[in-house]
Amino acid sequence: MSIDFTTVIDYVGTFAFAISGIRLASAKRFDWFGAYVVGAATAIGGGTIRDIMLGYSPFWMYQPSYLVVTGLALLFVICFGRYVIRLNNTFFIFDAIGLGLFTVVGIEKSLDASFPMWVAIIMGMVTGAVGGVIRDIFINEVPLIFRKDIYALACIVGGFLYYLCETVGTGHIATQLITAASVILCRLVAVKYHISLPVLKGNEDCQQQ
Amino acid sequence: MSIDFTTVIDYVGTFAFAISGIRLASAKRFDWFGAYVVGAATAIGGGTIRDIMLGYSPFWMYQPSYLVVTGLALLFVICFGRYVIRLNNTFFIFDAIGLGLFTVVGIEKSLDASFPMWVAIIMGMVTGAVGGVIRDIFINEVPLIFRKDIYALACIVGGFLYYLCETVGTGHIATQLITAASVILCRLVAVKYHISLPVLKGNEDCQQQ
Amino acid sequence: MSIDFTTVIDYVGTFAFAISGIRLASAKRFDWFGAYVVGAATAIGGGTIRDIMLGYSPFWMYQPSYLVVTGLALLFVICFGRYVIRLNNTFFIFDAIGLGLFTVVGIEKSLDASFPMWVAIIMGMVTGAVGGVIRDIFINEVPLIFRKDIYALACIVGGFLYYLCETVGTGHIATQLITAASVILCRLVAVKYHISLPVLKGNEDCQQQ
Repeated sequence: MSIDFTTVIDYVGTFAFAISGIRLASAKRFDWFGAYVVGAATAIGGGTIRDIMLGYSPFWMYQPSYLVVTGLALLFVICFGRYVIRLNNTFFIFDAIGLGLFTVVGIEKSLDASFPMWVAIIMGMVTGAVGGVIRDIFINEVPLIFRKDIYALACIVGGFLYYLCETVGTGHIATQLITAASVILCRLVAVKYHISLPVLKGNEDCQQQ
Repeated sequence: MSIDFTTVIDYVGTFAFAISGIRLASAKRFDWFGAYVVGAATAIGGGTIRDIMLGYSPFWMYQPSYLVVTGLALLFVICFGRYVIRLNNTFFIFDAIGLGLFTVVGIEKSLDASFPMWVAIIMGMVTGAVGGVIRDIFINEVPLIFRKDIYALACIVGGFLYYLCETVGTGHIATQLITAASVILCRLVAVKYHISLPVLKGNEDCQQQ
Repeated sequence: MSIDFTTVIDYVGTFAFAISGIRLASAKRFDWFGAYVVGAATAIGGGTIRDIMLGYSPFWMYQPSYLVVTGLALLFVICFGRYVIRLNNTFFIFDAIGLGLFTVVGIEKSLDASFPMWVAIIMGMVTGAVGGVIRDIFINEVPLIFRKDIYALACIVGGFLYYLCETVGTGHIATQLITAASVILCRLVAVKYHISLPVLKGNEDCQQQ
């Protein structure tokens, strides 16, 4: 394992995603094991679903470091739990950075598996956003990204920019940077200016059927 | 892509299933993105789980039209939301037709993958009924098909008739039609005459353990 | 299918796991079909997720007996529902035995698929514990194993002992027995003496974000 810049960012994103899961688990009074599982699901759940859809075994089964980073995140919350709340903004930035990188990873792994660009864009979003959906199902809440904020859509925007960059022929590194940066920027702007998608109306009295 | 009769029915079913998910999402005040995801999960979730169990990548990754149809369903609800409620019966028919066709598709794909008939019957049911289960998990409700109506069981009935037809040697088209028709009929009869399976009793004070 | 001792234990575990799911389903007033699905998910859900992650089709698609045993469990609850509650302790023992055996099965299938020991230990836990998580998601409750008791951790302990036995070179049968016994023992001791993992504290006012 070479420790290059991408690897560092990857672990930062994993750590931030895991913290997000572990904090919500603690609010539900999960025990340490439950908190670890929810943290891991948040951090690696999206990539797991992506890999299974692409026809691979999940990436973390070939590389224990992701589960180790999740363990460190648990240790961090156990030791510094009361301070973690104050670090909200820090973790928000980490989370956005992770989202941007996860999107790039998802896109490129799908293209490597010979799927077309539109599948790769979806898989970039799956990699970034599905972990949070699994987290919310585990804590028995309606998935947050279905109701609030621009989150998964930021991954889609990044995916389109990836396609655009590839089409006009920017270099590979530039394409990656532009994609990740656009995802991060979308998140920051959406949260700062409270930009949300419209809520779907008109069926308030509709029930399960 | 040849636009034959089966393809048309397939899209009608996908549209009806997607509408069912999007309507429930709107009742939970999901935003447009959340509504789209719940619609897509309802429409293609069953086939996705089937394909993964059979060892394939999900079918919609090879054919963008299913996601396009889901997008049209979302557009339809956004534009005509207030009228959609009045169309309950229309959508119920579409949903039943979709269920019948999805069952046939699931059975045949499983047989093509060399699984025995009993697996194919289960996969017919998975294709038809699991999308609704994922939908209900996403909107944080107990899956409806576990408590009410003959739904998944209609797929099982259709599966047995498929087996019977193959055994007595009706033609392939006839087998498909009889299977789909029997599923649709089961649904119509069950809903019209309020036929349900018995509720399991006797453990009311049982708790999670 | 040879009916040897392992097979018998396997079916006993499947039966006990299925009963656990069916009982909870009955408390939620599921119908017979819903109860069957929740029972099956509890019994074979863990192995299904394990097989998909390892790159196989789920084991029960090659061997109908698991679904038959689940059917017998449903029949048992339908016929003897009122007595099932009194058999709590019996089912607890069966469940623990099943957990021990499922752990061994999960470990060995992962090693056969050429994954390293740490993945096998995780897959032993997945095989034993994930069925209960799916069960709790289906009945719309927070998964019990995230909050209470030593359960998944017992599988991990068993996994480490498997590794230890393999390293020191005990025979294969001895390794299996020690692993299963340690899982069962952990469960019995944890429940008898109310041993739990600590609850994660410090973020009570944390919300979904």
